[in-house]
Amino acid sequence: MSGSTLGHLFCVTNFGESHGPAIGCVIDGCPPGMSLSEADIQPELDRRRPGTSRHVTQRNEPDAVEILSGVHEGRTTGTPICLLIRNTDQRSKDYGNIVQTFRPGHADYTYWHKYGLRDPRGGGRSSARLTAPMVGAGAVAKKWLKEHHGIAFRGGMAALGEIDIAFEGWQHVPDNPFFAPNASQIGQLEDFMDALRKEGDSVGARIVVEATGVPVGWGEPLFDKLDADIAHVMMGLNAVKGVEIGAGFASVAHRGSMHGDELTPQGFRSNHAGGVLGGISTGQDIRVSIAIKPTSSIRTPRQSIDLQGQPATVETFGRHDPCVGIRATPIAEALLALVLMDHALRHRAQCGDVRLPVAPIAAHLPDA
Amino acid sequence: MSGSTLGHLFCVTNFGESHGPAIGCVIDGCPPGMSLSEADIQPELDRRRPGTSRHVTQRNEPDAVEILSGVHEGRTTGTPICLLIRNTDQRSKDYGNIVQTFRPGHADYTYWHKYGLRDPRGGGRSSARLTAPMVGAGAVAKKWLKEHHGIAFRGGMAALGEIDIAFEGWQHVPDNPFFAPNASQIGQLEDFMDALRKEGDSVGARIVVEATGVPVGWGEPLFDKLDADIAHVMMGLNAVKGVEIGAGFASVAHRGSMHGDELTPQGFRSNHAGGVLGGISTGQDIRVSIAIKPTSSIRTPRQSIDLQGQPATVETFGRHDPCVGIRATPIAEALLALVLMDHALRHRAQCGDVRLPVAPIAAHLPDA
Amino acid sequence: MSGSTLGHLFCVTNFGESHGPAIGCVIDGCPPGMSLSEADIQPELDRRRPGTSRHVTQRNEPDAVEILSGVHEGRTTGTPICLLIRNTDQRSKDYGNIVQTFRPGHADYTYWHKYGLRDPRGGGRSSARLTAPMVGAGAVAKKWLKEHHGIAFRGGMAALGEIDIAFEGWQHVPDNPFFAPNASQIGQLEDFMDALRKEGDSVGARIVVEATGVPVGWGEPLFDKLDADIAHVMMGLNAVKGVEIGAGFASVAHRGSMHGDELTPQGFRSNHAGGVLGGISTGQDIRVSIAIKPTSSIRTPRQSIDLQGQPATVETFGRHDPCVGIRATPIAEALLALVLMDHALRHRAQCGDVRLPVAPIAAHLPDA
Amino acid sequence: MSGSTLGHLFCVTNFGESHGPAIGCVIDGCPPGMSLSEADIQPELDRRRPGTSRHVTQRNEPDAVEILSGVHEGRTTGTPICLLIRNTDQRSKDYGNIVQTFRPGHADYTYWHKYGLRDPRGGGRSSARLTAPMVGAGAVAKKWLKEHHGIAFRGGMAALGEIDIAFEGWQHVPDNPFFAPNASQIGQLEDFMDALRKEGDSVGARIVVEATGVPVGWGEPLFDKLDADIAHVMMGLNAVKGVEIGAGFASVAHRGSMHGDELTPQGFRSNHAGGVLGGISTGQDIRVSIAIKPTSSIRTPRQSIDLQGQPATVETFGRHDPCVGIRATPIAEALLALVLMDHALRHRAQCGDVRLPVAPIAAHLPDA
Repeated sequence: MSGSTLGHLFCVTNFGESHGPAIGCVIDGCPPGMSLSEADIQPELDRRRPGTSRHVTQRNEPDAVEILSGVHEGRTTGTPICLLIRNTDQRSKDYGNIVQTFRPGHADYTYWHKYGLRDPRGGGRSSARLTAPMVGAGAVAKKWLKEHHGIAFRGGMAALGEIDIAFEGWQHVPDNPFFAPNASQIGQLEDFMDALRKEGDSVGARIVVEATGVPVGWGEPLFDKLDADIAHVMMGLNAVKGVEIGAGFASVAHRGSMHGDELTPQGFRSNHAGGVLGGISTGQDIRVSIAIKPTSSIRTPRQSIDLQGQPATVETFGRHDPCVGIRATPIAEALLALVLMDHALRHRAQCGDVRLPVAPIAAHLPDA
Repeated sequence: MSGSTLGHLFCVTNFGESHGPAIGCVIDGCPPGMSLSEADIQPELDRRRPGTSRHVTQRNEPDAVEILSGVHEGRTTGTPICLLIRNTDQRSKDYGNIVQTFRPGHADYTYWHKYGLRDPRGGGRSSARLTAPMVGAGAVAKKWLKEHHGIAFRGGMAALGEIDIAFEGWQHVPDNPFFAPNASQIGQLEDFMDALRKEGDSVGARIVVEATGVPVGWGEPLFDKLDADIAHVMMGLNAVKGVEIGAGFASVAHRGSMHGDELTPQGFRSNHAGGVLGGISTGQDIRVSIAIKPTSSIRTPRQSIDLQGQPATVETFGRHDPCVGIRATPIAEALLALVLMDHALRHRAQCGDVRLPVAPIAAHLPDA
Repeated sequence: MSGSTLGHLFCVTNFGESHGPAIGCVIDGCPPGMSLSEADIQPELDRRRPGTSRHVTQRNEPDAVEILSGVHEGRTTGTPICLLIRNTDQRSKDYGNIVQTFRPGHADYTYWHKYGLRDPRGGGRSSARLTAPMVGAGAVAKKWLKEHHGIAFRGGMAALGEIDIAFEGWQHVPDNPFFAPNASQIGQLEDFMDALRKEGDSVGARIVVEATGVPVGWGEPLFDKLDADIAHVMMGLNAVKGVEIGAGFASVAHRGSMHGDELTPQGFRSNHAGGVLGGISTGQDIRVSIAIKPTSSIRTPRQSIDLQGQPATVETFGRHDPCVGIRATPIAEALLALVLMDHALRHRAQCGDVRLPVAPIAAHLPDA
Repeated sequence: MSGSTLGHLFCVTNFGESHGPAIGCVIDGCPPGMSLSEADIQPELDRRRPGTSRHVTQRNEPDAVEILSGVHEGRTTGTPICLLIRNTDQRSKDYGNIVQTFRPGHADYTYWHKYGLRDPRGGGRSSARLTAPMVGAGAVAKKWLKEHHGIAFRGGMAALGEIDIAFEGWQHVPDNPFFAPNASQIGQLEDFMDALRKEGDSVGARIVVEATGVPVGWGEPLFDKLDADIAHVMMGLNAVKGVEIGAGFASVAHRGSMHGDELTPQGFRSNHAGGVLGGISTGQDIRVSIAIKPTSSIRTPRQSIDLQGQPATVETFGRHDPCVGIRATPIAEALLALVLMDHALRHRAQCGDVRLPVAPIAAHLPDA
């Protein structure tokens, strides 16, 4: 395949550019018979869309999704579902000043050398705008996973720049513009972002997402392990530079006598594994953490070169997120859902018949 | 595909179990005409093989590789190359005591629930022994990448448990049993491991690998980005819990004004990107860091359950690596080579014709 | 993959249903830098579209194609090209009478049992209307193959029902509604079709397509041989029941001393191979013949069952092609182009470097 | 993928050359828990192996299969099954006389131009010997399909050169060296072959294979239709030039009022469809017919060129099948089994949940 399709059995093929007429995706392999309409998808797109607070890009896109195929009389037919999102707010002139140069840290240098030409309008294909169709596809996956397995998703920001965000409860996530599972630090985060915006600079973030209710047994060793496929899709998300499952890099300093999650008839005692052992789900919560780098489109002047290879100074105006991590939570949830959906189908293809006389243990000890 | 094949054009299909008659792989898609013999592959396998110091498993495997196909009169023919490695030291009785229980942190619980049965001999398919054929395939990829693009690989240990290993130079790597790019801390590392072995415990590690000389332009957005595919293969390596490209998790606290690597006509000023922007290689060194958890097979007693779901205590004897990270460096290099090889072919398939009038800039400033 | 994507490197993902809002496809893997606009694609769609003579369905569809992505300032960018065709003439009521029964010889029985539901509007996904996006994608492939390799395509009808159509010259194909390479039998064919339409019956056809100028060396043994992939795509075309390459079924009665095409320094003496040996192109014309069965939607009453499994009589009114073979020529050409395009890219991925000191021989002897 | 892997979920990767040390395959995706040993596979290999009558090649190969992985204590583990067959009778000198020339009708011309080198030993990779591992893999698929769905396979020769072979009953197939479902024409066939052998010539054949008991619903439109995948694998078999499903090319002259198989509550009235409608199985017998061309390695002198492009005369001695069709029946059965196995798994991945209140009708009317 040529890189724009995600998944082996629940396949999502993405198309479009930031400032072309439309973006979208084709979902091939969705099981038939599930009720589905735009109303199931739009709320997830609304969580991701720009222009919802002063801390994100002011581009004003309704991101209204249209289902073009694969649904008949309100039910999936088992045939490809095409989701279409028209681009409406395409101020290409915003980008006029960067056509002749390369932003340090941006993909426009590598795209140019790979393809021999540039689509400078909003980054073209490299824009984070292309995550919108994935959020749409993720909504379809989430619905099926919930209905068939009771799987739920949650996520939020764990760090904004150097500020660690204390976990105070998932219920706080919808109540602030940062998707922070926290109520007490929101003022601090807002002040930080306001100052950053004034400076014309940008900052990174760390996001955590979880899936609960995943059955034991999903994942396809040797190479398409569940955690491997999660790492693939997360590292493929714009601006991500690191991925952790469970204890992640903290595992380096762990001893085996402490790291391995003990099993009891009542459930697991801990979850350093992040829900995956040997590349296969354990039944525990799948827990993923990702590092997002600061946006490369900033007002602060930086040294670069132009298309002729001569020295140039770059300042990016236009409308950009000063921290792309702020809108990353619903995207990362969607990507996790897409990986799990694919593995749900892969698992039942090969091992759908397997029945053991002993039930799996619980995800947690009752009191954990 | 069913999970045991890595790559899209340079495809490596892995087979075998730790204690079956043989392990191996089939490499499909190797370009024809390259000189190749076992002598090109065996040295890489020797770097990885067990029993080379007191700090790794004492299983004694020669890991002698045999080329069964795809080479005629010393040259690759363009047809599948089968590499076979016979298992010779299979003391299955070592595993007798763990057949009825599940090691905390080990894949035997998830394999059992997925497949409905267990191959307890050395972890069966989940054993790190299955990385041997990948090291063999990686040697083939390394050879082609060197001959066609001058790409070189290097790597080493950056942390052993809580001990950070200072980088003193790649030249030290072959001179110590840890693959440490360091000469001054080796005694400390040996003492640490000796103590650990006495305790019957295990520990994690952090490994860094790099590829130099990669041309600009490799990587297939949107999903098969170069860094995404690297993350996929690295997270799929046994015991890995985290993957970073370039600055990795440190990017979270970076400002955009500092993180984005400035371009000059003479070269890049820094490499926070780790050689990848927008999922496409920049021409800089590809830099990857991975976190490896502590081995789950330890002598220290731990709580678990048995096959009937009843409480049990597990102690693992047999021959196990107290730190699987020690032998991980040549494996991680091989995996990086396999990803680059696949992308070399994918790139020339789609963009082989692209020629720009301006040359790419250098990987580094001359004085960097 | 889930069945709606064709190709490995030049990947076409098809979506839509006969009577949904739109049909289309996403082409992933098109090389960058080729000039492309709707004007390059529309003429091929016009060759295929319905309503152009009294011998085909009277459904009136303009089949106007819109490029939604992958083209910037008139050139392909190397990113996915989405082609969209809105459905405009959807008289779903035409199908009211067949919702409760299954047409003998039609896919509505198998679709219902596979997916558990029916989209009876024009056959839904099983409609030949879904070939329109493939003709669009084929036009893109044809353009690239012509510009890069000088490859040309031609085809026409070789038999209409029991009437064998004598080959009189490819130049006649555009001059009659049957795509017949013949000028003298057109009256006979028209009379035959007029009579058939009055009877309310349908008939089969045989179509031949050729590609000229294909270089030696394309095709990926062991399984993705060039002829194997051609057979795959042709047998996958609606109503096709047989595929031949070169001499096809006539080869059964051949002797080896006559069948094998002799080579001379000036070129091949014959082309029983149809341009493929060992699954790899020879440099000769690729020659494919396909058998198309009669349409199953006919006015003649036939025995069947209803959704409850009870006996029923089926007569199909609505607007149907009495011979789907009539419009099959441009479709078969497009499919052949898609296979060749994919193999062009696959070949240069693995063997792009191969250079022999001796040139291939010509496709034909100069006087052949 | 690079062409040597067949299937999407039941994936068979083939390796080896005719005169290398070994041939074999890796089966990835076999469901776990099925009893399996070499004894389940060897009988199918014995049906195919050379040297069993004077009408086939006298190469003497035991074709003894060894299972290297994927089976533990007599049961499949769900991990890759490697089948290995050592080559034992490699008289490479037999081929000495053809190293410098190209046999008309043989793949050695195209392999040379594709890969830039030749492995002349028995055709190397293009040899029909590489079908042996597929027969082995097919035996695994047959066993699973029989145990899980009651599917059975049968096949035989329908024509040998110009001699049509009357169908007298499948029970005759094992009783003659031609796999002919016929008892009365065997003497005629033997005389024909004896004469042919004396002449030093070769001839084509037509083979029919069937699968019975296939459930309704298998096949993945739009492109991976069941019949499309069957055509792919059959046209990919050495020497095949044509593939038909059901009525095949006879459909061209059919009327729709006769061709479409009528449905009754008791079963289908006919099977022109060959068990596939819209690319999905109907529950009827899957019926496939293939045309096999005459062997290109013959003693009769023929015109060709040498490696320098100069005129040459070719006569092939060595040990060759004068009609490769004679041994093709077990191979074609195996290939059909492999396609069905893959679709069995693909179907349950996407549509495993579908349950209709009405049962499918029978494959045939009770008296048919």
